[in-house]
Amino acid sequence: MPASQHQNPKSDIEISQAATKRRILDIAKEKLGIAAENLDPYGHYKAKVSMDYVKSLAGKPNGKLILVTAISPTPAGEGKTTTTVGLTDALNYIGKKAMLCLREPSLGPSFGVKGGAAGGGYAQVIPMEDINLHFTGDFHAITSAHNLLSALIDNHIYWGNSLGIDSRRVAWRRVMDMNDRALREIVCSLGGVANGYPREAGFDITVASEVMAIFCLAKDLEDLKERLGNIIIAYTRERKPIRARDLNAHGAMAALLKDAIAPNLVQTLEGTPAFIHGGPFANIAHGCNSVSATTTALKLADYVVTEAGFGADLGAEKFIDIKCRKAGLKPDCVVIVATIRALKMHGGVKKEDLKKEDLKALEAGMSNLQRHVENVKKFGLPAVVSINRFSADTDAEIALVKEKCKALGVEAIMADHWAMGGEGAADVAKAVVKIIDSGKADLKLLYPDDMPLFEKVRTIAKEIYRADDATADKSVKDQLKQWEEMGFGKLPVCIAKTQYSFSTNPDAKGAPTGFSIPVREVRLSAGAEFVVAICGEIMTMPGLPKVPSADAIDVKDGKIVGLF
Amino acid sequence: MPASQHQNPKSDIEISQAATKRRILDIAKEKLGIAAENLDPYGHYKAKVSMDYVKSLAGKPNGKLILVTAISPTPAGEGKTTTTVGLTDALNYIGKKAMLCLREPSLGPSFGVKGGAAGGGYAQVIPMEDINLHFTGDFHAITSAHNLLSALIDNHIYWGNSLGIDSRRVAWRRVMDMNDRALREIVCSLGGVANGYPREAGFDITVASEVMAIFCLAKDLEDLKERLGNIIIAYTRERKPIRARDLNAHGAMAALLKDAIAPNLVQTLEGTPAFIHGGPFANIAHGCNSVSATTTALKLADYVVTEAGFGADLGAEKFIDIKCRKAGLKPDCVVIVATIRALKMHGGVKKEDLKKEDLKALEAGMSNLQRHVENVKKFGLPAVVSINRFSADTDAEIALVKEKCKALGVEAIMADHWAMGGEGAADVAKAVVKIIDSGKADLKLLYPDDMPLFEKVRTIAKEIYRADDATADKSVKDQLKQWEEMGFGKLPVCIAKTQYSFSTNPDAKGAPTGFSIPVREVRLSAGAEFVVAICGEIMTMPGLPKVPSADAIDVKDGKIVGLF
Repeated sequence: MPASQHQNPKSDIEISQAATKRRILDIAKEKLGIAAENLDPYGHYKAKVSMDYVKSLAGKPNGKLILVTAISPTPAGEGKTTTTVGLTDALNYIGKKAMLCLREPSLGPSFGVKGGAAGGGYAQVIPMEDINLHFTGDFHAITSAHNLLSALIDNHIYWGNSLGIDSRRVAWRRVMDMNDRALREIVCSLGGVANGYPREAGFDITVASEVMAIFCLAKDLEDLKERLGNIIIAYTRERKPIRARDLNAHGAMAALLKDAIAPNLVQTLEGTPAFIHGGPFANIAHGCNSVSATTTALKLADYVVTEAGFGADLGAEKFIDIKCRKAGLKPDCVVIVATIRALKMHGGVKKEDLKKEDLKALEAGMSNLQRHVENVKKFGLPAVVSINRFSADTDAEIALVKEKCKALGVEAIMADHWAMGGEGAADVAKAVVKIIDSGKADLKLLYPDDMPLFEKVRTIAKEIYRADDATADKSVKDQLKQWEEMGFGKLPVCIAKTQYSFSTNPDAKGAPTGFSIPVREVRLSAGAEFVVAICGEIMTMPGLPKVPSADAIDVKDGKIVGLF
Repeated sequence: MPASQHQNPKSDIEISQAATKRRILDIAKEKLGIAAENLDPYGHYKAKVSMDYVKSLAGKPNGKLILVTAISPTPAGEGKTTTTVGLTDALNYIGKKAMLCLREPSLGPSFGVKGGAAGGGYAQVIPMEDINLHFTGDFHAITSAHNLLSALIDNHIYWGNSLGIDSRRVAWRRVMDMNDRALREIVCSLGGVANGYPREAGFDITVASEVMAIFCLAKDLEDLKERLGNIIIAYTRERKPIRARDLNAHGAMAALLKDAIAPNLVQTLEGTPAFIHGGPFANIAHGCNSVSATTTALKLADYVVTEAGFGADLGAEKFIDIKCRKAGLKPDCVVIVATIRALKMHGGVKKEDLKKEDLKALEAGMSNLQRHVENVKKFGLPAVVSINRFSADTDAEIALVKEKCKALGVEAIMADHWAMGGEGAADVAKAVVKIIDSGKADLKLLYPDDMPLFEKVRTIAKEIYRADDATADKSVKDQLKQWEEMGFGKLPVCIAKTQYSFSTNPDAKGAPTGFSIPVREVRLSAGAEFVVAICGEIMTMPGLPKVPSADAIDVKDGKIVGLF
């Protein structure tokens, strides 16, 4: 979130660094009842909760689960993470015992254009510079485990290729946690006999790794290892799949991930405990923090607030149809985040004109929010709309949003946690508690496990995106059929498409109709246990802009500056 | 070191995991007087000493510095790290206040053939599985900083190349902490306009990164940043050097290394404090742990034991002529490690025949030890020879080594810390203390700063390797002259050659004569501040063997197994 939101004179990193941090062992003891011996500290303000302790919680009852999602993202900014942090602080502010679960930010984009992913203003998790850089090393562990498998594949081919891997059909790329477009497509193993057999290869950013998705969906270390073994890394000339297990790679990969799988505990600016753990892409993967963090948090707090990636069409749908389906989670309430600025953009206003009142555009842009509200209801979940307040919001605009939401059967509440911390979101917190107390949530998955794979894609396209249909070439449909025959038919599908629109056209704001969803390509994540349907161009390795953030990042007097 | 050395029924990892570890905060408090607030714990058994605390030690007197080095390495194994650990435990055993400084192991080779680098038997630093895998994340930070610079270079070219980088003359490769031969030589930026300008590129292993060498030679974070800015990343068509500073990359790189630069504290099996920090290659770099760890240790303990890479010809020479020269360190005693097995290999015995007594071969192989002893004396340093005991060593063999060493003016002492811990090296410790008390050390650098670069190479070749001469093509000599004109003439030289022989022929064991040292290529490490002279083939990205160690590494019941 930009520091200019409220003309706040301090940047996020300045607020974070000026905060009075409490020792994480004290936070854990006092707020969650976790003794020091059940924590592995990483410095004084970060800790991992030991997996033995996590296991010991199995018999305890679960708290209530609140999902924060949003309208379709726009360049105006919505503030989903800020709301997740602010709402949890607010729940504590009104006297509840609440904690939150977020995704870990990727290091690479910190040097590109993206701001940090630790909230903003007075609704942040801290220490933000640690969280946005190496944190507790989880992503480095995932990178290492992924690339160990890559090295073992080319090494197997080098030493005689007894498994008969077709080097044209290696499905496993390499990863790096860096925005480096030069690595998207490479030819490797050049330079002669000693370096192997040249072939086309490439790198994705670490968050796009299937190891990341597996890491976030695995119940425990044993489940993690089993899933790592299931990864399909290549095919033979006869199209027979070769798995990581065939290279006996999964044990060593699990060894590299042994410490990483334990949830990371930090705190908000208000001392609220927060798990920040795992961070898969929200396009080719499901885009939520780890199952281990969410299930552990539910044992530790009465209210657990978590967020899903992108807008509710992509993020909430995957949270429910992939993560909840597999981990047995049942949300009790959904918070849909919007801003008046962003709704005006959905109504056709340009970014430079957002400070002017425009009720007509706002009303038009409400169509986007309306569709997300309807979608959440389809999942059987009650919702509240949380509007992040900006200083340019006018009374008439606020009144319009509230009135329109009321007509949709959902309450819209203004939230000002960015400037005020938890107190600023107290009304949202009260509304959330009221909804949960009413016990209306009754989770319905969108499709059953045994629906054919392409029918699953079609169901999401029609029910959630409101497309007329989903389309695909015969080769794509044949591939899905083949996977069904191989026993993968019961997997959920994960749709990778632009997050900026319900359609596959990022410029189609609001609530577009009269389009279809073309499935260009399908990929099998046999370890993560979902089938990815790629609709449109999806970038799995970002590039850096002309003047990257790295240009401003520096260390002065032992402190990091310029990170935002 | 193989577990079969003494028919010890336990592997190194089993000994490490069975050890009663003390909390690192307790070790720091009790043995070094460091309060908890000056440490950043990483779990309960690893911690970083804060750089503010490191700075506060500046006025304290220095302890004594003991360098552990070795004969030319053989496949029989010498046990240099084991001796470093055992000797430090032994110094504490005889009542001294001692600590040790080691290099951090590289993660990549743990999955290849190399064993761990945390000592062995009952002379280990623990927890060995942490130290050998991610440890405190320093190498991941170095990898990230290195690859950020790589990404910024290609990004600069992509966005118009205003600095005029000649893409054929990019000198900065990428790194990964993995043995992956497929990445040695690649073509990157394939796939069209969006991915940049295709060019030849490649990866080294992280320990070969100049960032690693800089990290280990930098005095503090400010010095680190300055040196990072000095890195030459490429040349223009007119051969004008382009530096990391020209891309304004050094600030963001330093931000990534901010936490890593603080020394890592762990303990030996006997609770002796140990810094394990930094680990540059010993061929294209200087092969010693960080200056920050060594200088800090000297403020904290009366005796500091540290080791240099490979044999004394490469490791000790670089320790003295690069690290000591630049950091103002002065060793008080040198310990030269040998085994009777390895000396017999230098005398021509094959590995499978090492268990048989062979006095003739042993006497012949003593020539290797003799030359290293003479070399150490040239540096003005007193030495003791520590012979790691193996069960097959015979009384006659031991007597022969002792007698021959006496004739060389140096005492040879049998050490059995591998089986017995510190007690097993008590005699070595006593001899070391006696030598230090006699105050004989009077460090002489091998060459002055203002000797021309090629003369420096020649001096090392003749004085240390005992070559007839050093040779190089005109192009190499011209390159060195050009660097002298550019102001790099005062830098020390770092010779990259095989560690297995004084010559460039790895099969020439013992003490070869009648050879010359051909300099094939020279490289300028303008940030690390040395000139690398490459003599023979030097591999900066290892490969994996047919059956890599990864095959046996696994996690069982939450414990890592198969790592050695």
